[in-house]
Amino acid sequence: MTSTTGFELFLPKKLLTFTTHIFQYFGVPLKDASLAAEVLHYSDIRGIDSHGVARLHSYFDMLTLQRINPTPNIKIAREKKSAATIDADNGLGLVVGPKAHQIALQKAAKYGTGFISVFNTNHYGAAGYYAEKALEHNLISWSMTNSTKLVAPLWGAERMLGTNPIAIAFPAKKNPPVVIDLATSAAAYGKVEIALRKGEQIPHGWCIDNQGKITKDPQGMIDGGALLPLGSEREFGGHKGYCLAAMVDILTCVLSGANWGPFAPPFALRQEVPARSVGKGIGHFFGAMDIDAFRDVDEFKVEMDDWIDTFRATTPQSGTNGPLIPGDPERATMAERNKNGIPIIDKVVDDLLDISKKTGVKLI
Amino acid sequence: MTSTTGFELFLPKKLLTFTTHIFQYFGVPLKDASLAAEVLHYSDIRGIDSHGVARLHSYFDMLTLQRINPTPNIKIAREKKSAATIDADNGLGLVVGPKAHQIALQKAAKYGTGFISVFNTNHYGAAGYYAEKALEHNLISWSMTNSTKLVAPLWGAERMLGTNPIAIAFPAKKNPPVVIDLATSAAAYGKVEIALRKGEQIPHGWCIDNQGKITKDPQGMIDGGALLPLGSEREFGGHKGYCLAAMVDILTCVLSGANWGPFAPPFALRQEVPARSVGKGIGHFFGAMDIDAFRDVDEFKVEMDDWIDTFRATTPQSGTNGPLIPGDPERATMAERNKNGIPIIDKVVDDLLDISKKTGVKLI
Repeated sequence: MTSTTGFELFLPKKLLTFTTHIFQYFGVPLKDASLAAEVLHYSDIRGIDSHGVARLHSYFDMLTLQRINPTPNIKIAREKKSAATIDADNGLGLVVGPKAHQIALQKAAKYGTGFISVFNTNHYGAAGYYAEKALEHNLISWSMTNSTKLVAPLWGAERMLGTNPIAIAFPAKKNPPVVIDLATSAAAYGKVEIALRKGEQIPHGWCIDNQGKITKDPQGMIDGGALLPLGSEREFGGHKGYCLAAMVDILTCVLSGANWGPFAPPFALRQEVPARSVGKGIGHFFGAMDIDAFRDVDEFKVEMDDWIDTFRATTPQSGTNGPLIPGDPERATMAERNKNGIPIIDKVVDDLLDISKKTGVKLI
Repeated sequence: MTSTTGFELFLPKKLLTFTTHIFQYFGVPLKDASLAAEVLHYSDIRGIDSHGVARLHSYFDMLTLQRINPTPNIKIAREKKSAATIDADNGLGLVVGPKAHQIALQKAAKYGTGFISVFNTNHYGAAGYYAEKALEHNLISWSMTNSTKLVAPLWGAERMLGTNPIAIAFPAKKNPPVVIDLATSAAAYGKVEIALRKGEQIPHGWCIDNQGKITKDPQGMIDGGALLPLGSEREFGGHKGYCLAAMVDILTCVLSGANWGPFAPPFALRQEVPARSVGKGIGHFFGAMDIDAFRDVDEFKVEMDDWIDTFRATTPQSGTNGPLIPGDPERATMAERNKNGIPIIDKVVDDLLDISKKTGVKLI
């Protein structure tokens, strides 16, 4: 099915309902299914299109093959007062992620900080969801996860790390919050795919081919090449992006007992099965910090307003409107999509229709 | 005084003794003076030359002008069980940094995690010192600080942020630890100065001039231009480096009550005085996490050995020996300098001789 625009507009509510029903179809309890749908919706409404319903078919595949547990019993595997490791029982990351994160929030409320590593879990959606969720409790929260290998360490010629994101958010008083959510690679894999589809070259500095040479050919990366870490080459700080990706890898996996580095299990069916298993599932890492433990909350928020206003008033680089505040682009998209609907590209609509057909759950 | 080599070799012990005596000269108690000297030495012995005795003249100037308190009384300004904010009483960062960090370590030992924000402080040396220090207690520690403005936010045409470093370290069993310490700018200011001295151009992507245009002329950056954040341009993730620098700025300063962003006070005498003051001094942020709260310590270290061995075995990019493990370059330099001495460039030797002359403390 192909639209003339290349996409179809969906009402947010319709997508939420469909997604919830799909998870329920596999025996995920309603409350958990709604939560999972909410996490996907967080991405779709903000334009983080790679992390929303575009991934539903992968979840569908994994649930169909019973590779994900629809009714996990998450357990605290190890604990001290303000820290713990959670065994997520191979549940949907979209369900066990929020539940493990909740434990970090509770610990922060009680002790001032709460840090949680999670193993035996699966993809948890957009890292920013968790960081932003903490704001309603006046907590500052870090969120990190590993993922299937795509990125080469600087001076390496093969995929060894996921795009391993780091998210954190800070509330303000009159301004919307500062929401940071960044992958530790120079560019997103989705951008390489888009270039391939359009028959365009990619910039020098995004990718290497399977010989480890920097390539401008998207197919060269896809055929056994890799993304470069943030900073790209040594001269521009590629070692720093590698270090950040390594930090996320160790905090999410080595600390918890999940599969780190190149051994992260595949998420989609077509992905390569790792050479060995060094833990259980993938890993997440959540940190929560009670603002009130450090500074009067209102004072902090007023100061954040000043910070935001000051950075917004930076002299602009010519040809730009000046620096954005982290979270601005997603908020602009959210306003637009809440009004006009969520554009879903034809390929993803086809995926949803396929799921609909196979489950009998109506899409529209 | 100019050597034929451009540098002089110093025995580590000689530099340590000289530095300690200089701090004592200003009334810093022996124990604190030794600690400050140790922090500077951490950088000098590892080749982080910009953060060692090369900065002693700035500390000397600030102490001479009584802009730094030689006998600070550090106080807990606010506290919950596993978190606190420290008022560093305008002490030497090299002294109050380690003391505030110690409180994070103690909290982690007691609660599982300990997070400390610090205000009313000064430059604390290399961020990595703190991360590495925690390893002897089997703790994982974050260390961050803000610093005088040098970096433009993406799409900005002026200096708004410091090079705001992030450090963290992880212990292994048979291997040396993974030590991460990175500035959130694309390149270091020191590299721009070196290019200027050599009459060379700088790579496209390091700096902008005072019009906000990317420049290859080091003088263009120095004359009111700025460093670019890690990632350099939008296409290569410059927004991510800006986000990381902003994160450090907020955690170190807005959370503690220090001077954030462009308002960080000058460290060296020639630096511009900020337009206004929004807090006290600069800010640090320390986090400590007890490995034992998450995973059996020995198991973690053995897994880290596997992680390190696996990453070392990555297929190398041609023309390289393959990826390094974070901390490798500093360890190689340390081995070499412990054996042969620390090379101090003539300009810094002149600084040290000037300090020696003004204080009467013998250099050699």
